Amino acid sequence: MGQGRTLKDGLAERGLLHVMAAHSPLSARLAEEAGFDGVWASGFELSALYGLPDVSLISMTQHLDMVRAIASQSALPIVADIDTGFGNALNVIHAVEHYERAGAAAVVIEDKTFPKVTSLVAGGRQELLRIEEFQGKIEAAVATRRDRDFLVIARTEALIAGRGQEEALTRAAAYAAAGADMILVHSKQRTPDEIERFVRAWTGAAPLVIVPTAYPDMNEARIRALGGIAMVIYGNHALRASVTAMQDVFARIRRDGGIHHVDRDIVPVEEIFRLQGMDRVKDDEARFLR
Amino acid sequence: MGQGRTLKDGLAERGLLHVMAAHSPLSARLAEEAGFDGVWASGFELSALYGLPDVSLISMTQHLDMVRAIASQSALPIVADIDTGFGNALNVIHAVEHYERAGAAAVVIEDKTFPKVTSLVAGGRQELLRIEEFQGKIEAAVATRRDRDFLVIARTEALIAGRGQEEALTRAAAYAAAGADMILVHSKQRTPDEIERFVRAWTGAAPLVIVPTAYPDMNEARIRALGGIAMVIYGNHALRASVTAMQDVFARIRRDGGIHHVDRDIVPVEEIFRLQGMDRVKDDEARFLR
Amino acid sequence: MGQGRTLKDGLAERGLLHVMAAHSPLSARLAEEAGFDGVWASGFELSALYGLPDVSLISMTQHLDMVRAIASQSALPIVADIDTGFGNALNVIHAVEHYERAGAAAVVIEDKTFPKVTSLVAGGRQELLRIEEFQGKIEAAVATRRDRDFLVIARTEALIAGRGQEEALTRAAAYAAAGADMILVHSKQRTPDEIERFVRAWTGAAPLVIVPTAYPDMNEARIRALGGIAMVIYGNHALRASVTAMQDVFARIRRDGGIHHVDRDIVPVEEIFRLQGMDRVKDDEARFLR
Amino acid sequence: MGQGRTLKDGLAERGLLHVMAAHSPLSARLAEEAGFDGVWASGFELSALYGLPDVSLISMTQHLDMVRAIASQSALPIVADIDTGFGNALNVIHAVEHYERAGAAAVVIEDKTFPKVTSLVAGGRQELLRIEEFQGKIEAAVATRRDRDFLVIARTEALIAGRGQEEALTRAAAYAAAGADMILVHSKQRTPDEIERFVRAWTGAAPLVIVPTAYPDMNEARIRALGGIAMVIYGNHALRASVTAMQDVFARIRRDGGIHHVDRDIVPVEEIFRLQGMDRVKDDEARFLR
Repeated sequence: MGQGRTLKDGLAERGLLHVMAAHSPLSARLAEEAGFDGVWASGFELSALYGLPDVSLISMTQHLDMVRAIASQSALPIVADIDTGFGNALNVIHAVEHYERAGAAAVVIEDKTFPKVTSLVAGGRQELLRIEEFQGKIEAAVATRRDRDFLVIARTEALIAGRGQEEALTRAAAYAAAGADMILVHSKQRTPDEIERFVRAWTGAAPLVIVPTAYPDMNEARIRALGGIAMVIYGNHALRASVTAMQDVFARIRRDGGIHHVDRDIVPVEEIFRLQGMDRVKDDEARFLR
Repeated sequence: MGQGRTLKDGLAERGLLHVMAAHSPLSARLAEEAGFDGVWASGFELSALYGLPDVSLISMTQHLDMVRAIASQSALPIVADIDTGFGNALNVIHAVEHYERAGAAAVVIEDKTFPKVTSLVAGGRQELLRIEEFQGKIEAAVATRRDRDFLVIARTEALIAGRGQEEALTRAAAYAAAGADMILVHSKQRTPDEIERFVRAWTGAAPLVIVPTAYPDMNEARIRALGGIAMVIYGNHALRASVTAMQDVFARIRRDGGIHHVDRDIVPVEEIFRLQGMDRVKDDEARFLR
Repeated sequence: MGQGRTLKDGLAERGLLHVMAAHSPLSARLAEEAGFDGVWASGFELSALYGLPDVSLISMTQHLDMVRAIASQSALPIVADIDTGFGNALNVIHAVEHYERAGAAAVVIEDKTFPKVTSLVAGGRQELLRIEEFQGKIEAAVATRRDRDFLVIARTEALIAGRGQEEALTRAAAYAAAGADMILVHSKQRTPDEIERFVRAWTGAAPLVIVPTAYPDMNEARIRALGGIAMVIYGNHALRASVTAMQDVFARIRRDGGIHHVDRDIVPVEEIFRLQGMDRVKDDEARFLR
Repeated sequence: MGQGRTLKDGLAERGLLHVMAAHSPLSARLAEEAGFDGVWASGFELSALYGLPDVSLISMTQHLDMVRAIASQSALPIVADIDTGFGNALNVIHAVEHYERAGAAAVVIEDKTFPKVTSLVAGGRQELLRIEEFQGKIEAAVATRRDRDFLVIARTEALIAGRGQEEALTRAAAYAAAGADMILVHSKQRTPDEIERFVRAWTGAAPLVIVPTAYPDMNEARIRALGGIAMVIYGNHALRASVTAMQDVFARIRRDGGIHHVDRDIVPVEEIFRLQGMDRVKDDEARFLR
């Protein structure tokens, strides 16, 4: 059974999927232990891990390597953030072939032009493809997948680009008509209003996906009350948590002149051994080293 | 001027170098902002990032890619943890050619057999090379470097392997005689005693390096009082801080049913934009996009 | 159906598998068009492609990337040459997990110590593992595979190392007892005698594999007459053909002062377009670009 | 001294540089032995090596890895074919930082839109950027390089796109004005006429570069007689020679039922050992293995 099926079964069972951003197999494993339903292989987090702005600099090779590494280390289905699909419909075909083969459960493709600018930054260029052109990309993705359960999720940046509700709804409908399994609608408003209006106005059959980074008050209770949303993606909290902790611990080590204080406040090295599977190493050594 | 020179100048100026583990360009950049003197490109942290035990599974390609990515994003000198050198003296030659070219300031090579087992785990196999064989590896590294300031640091695991002080001192002297620029002596005792005894007994000219993970009380004050130590490496605190924070934030998101609470306790997405250099992106767009 | 099954079915049908070395998806595709039964993802050819000696310098990452790239571009089953398994039994476990996931049909693991020295070079160090230790590696590989049809092929270098027929037979039997699906026996004698003696003396149930680089007179007719051999690997002819041609064409271009003569003697650029699938590009453009 | 300087010195000394396509360190080394002045790190050859059409599918990571591998194995200056620069001016900045760091001597950037279509294919889409937009990319490249001798070569596809001589000359002049060190002008006419007209009409100071794949009669004698051309790139002959040879040798092995005939017609395995540097391995073993 493919990972797309796992995601669909999870949705059928629980009605709402909680998907956590990951930038490494380690963060994916932590998301799995915490009980999330899937992993968001975030282009933003991976760009940041490399110290790069999220403007189509990270290559498909770099992102795909990380997806593959995650797939080999975590049982969670992976929702791969492939930005614009790395170019036009031909690039999408190439990408879908490789992400499906890498073990992803789904790809999310957004309707911005390549190269893109990250969505939430103030004053960013936000240019959208023509609708027909993006439909071609969705159709190409759908025609390429081998497993019918591999999900093709279309992401519209119409609200991000300031094009308004009507345009967002028109685009969402056009993408669903082109075969998208779900619609991710993104917003950078500080409150859930914009998204809630969209969700209420959406009459399509395709389930919706949201990324409430900018409007954190859109929590599970409010999502379930609203209805229509299949998946909530926590888009960058793994990385933001890590940065917060490293800044704090690094500053303290400098201030303290050593690790004698911080040592108590972070997990012991044995916890890292556990996460690395050192127990299995010992078993395997006993079994196979002669 | 090469990065080896930067490291040596820093040592001459400050008498003790504080080097922080990094598993990514982002963590290296945070170490730089916090005022560390260098970055420890840790095999342990990178293995853990990939969800793998630190037993020579991460390939030189994977580690070298990370070193190169760090070098392109941080001005800090990189001390590259190349474990055993990925095999014998021929592998060391290959490694030194590539790490120097990648922009590293130094390599640390340890005297365990390949494949190694991580040093601090309880009950790990800890097998040492014959002294002459390891001297060959040090000589190979020294003969290969192009920049005389590129540092070849020999790491002895004699104390880790339970071979005692005398063996540790003998090995350290032999490695210095083979051309090692510094000696890293590792210990897993919970107190600084073992290392302090070694440092007091050491009469060689090569400066010493320590990694006080197991004995955090060995802080800067105590190191400076003791003398003889040129570099202290904080070997895994970037990763342990990150894991601590991700476990906490992930658990809270699940418990809270959303990000409405954690959002206040982690750096805002704008801080990530800053670290990614979004300001430079805007400048470059203004200058070069037409 | 996995690629291991394809290989087994091919053997059942044709009695002898002809497997051609490849160092790239392109050479694999040419092998497929020429009618070979499988591709030998050769460590020797890949090392040479990188300009490196075949002494365990190419990393598993580099080799695995090539296997994966081949798997995505050719329908032929891939027999992956993983040398010694990149270390001990733990490395073998790691390798088998990744090569199976990458789409390989089989791995060949050899009984030399890591790091290895290429087999056919005059006067090379050729050190063998203890039999029990190598059995542990075979057992680890067999225990790790998920698909029962994924083939674990044990390669003995006993003849290469000058240990004689008896040792070779003992090792082959021990490896088969440990679970190896086939036995590759390697020889650097200039005539087939040594291999023929081995094949005649072999009473095990595991089919044999040979690599007749050194003894090219061992052709299909002679192999079929002898019996007992399931697979013949042409270990480096793709690369040797390429080098021969590049040396010739490069020299002529220099001598001629241009490409006006050689142009007639090499395939036209349109043949490369065909191999790259430019026809499919045009179809996809017509279908999906708007 | 950087490799850009080596290229410039070669030009000053010999008046015309002969640069051979390479898709691997091995082919670069063969080009060096044959006496070429530089290596063309061809996107077309690398795409073909991966079995992919040359339509912006190969990632910068894949191409850069190959450039880096070549730089570590050959003394020849590398002229890196970076297509459109992998996107807009921001991608060009990212690329130039990394290609210079990887050891390239020059980059060639072409004025097509991203994703591109290979130039010589019949009926390919050939869309050009606005002149001002491409000038921004050239200016970005020039502003980014650290070594003044690192060459930024602008490639115009105006003739390929059927825009005529005037447009080609206008573009070439605009790109030189933006800071391009040389102008590569490409043509797919079967005779040198089109290029010769361009060269005669060119009054700019920037030297010209040609790639005479389509018009092989443009040999050295004719180029020198014409004047104005600094570099001739043999764009795909390494790959075409290799394919020709592999097709021939593979077919013969199948037909002959073995390697007994072809063995005589290809270089022996010892020649590959020589190219891999096995002699140095033996020296290093004698010096450093104990």
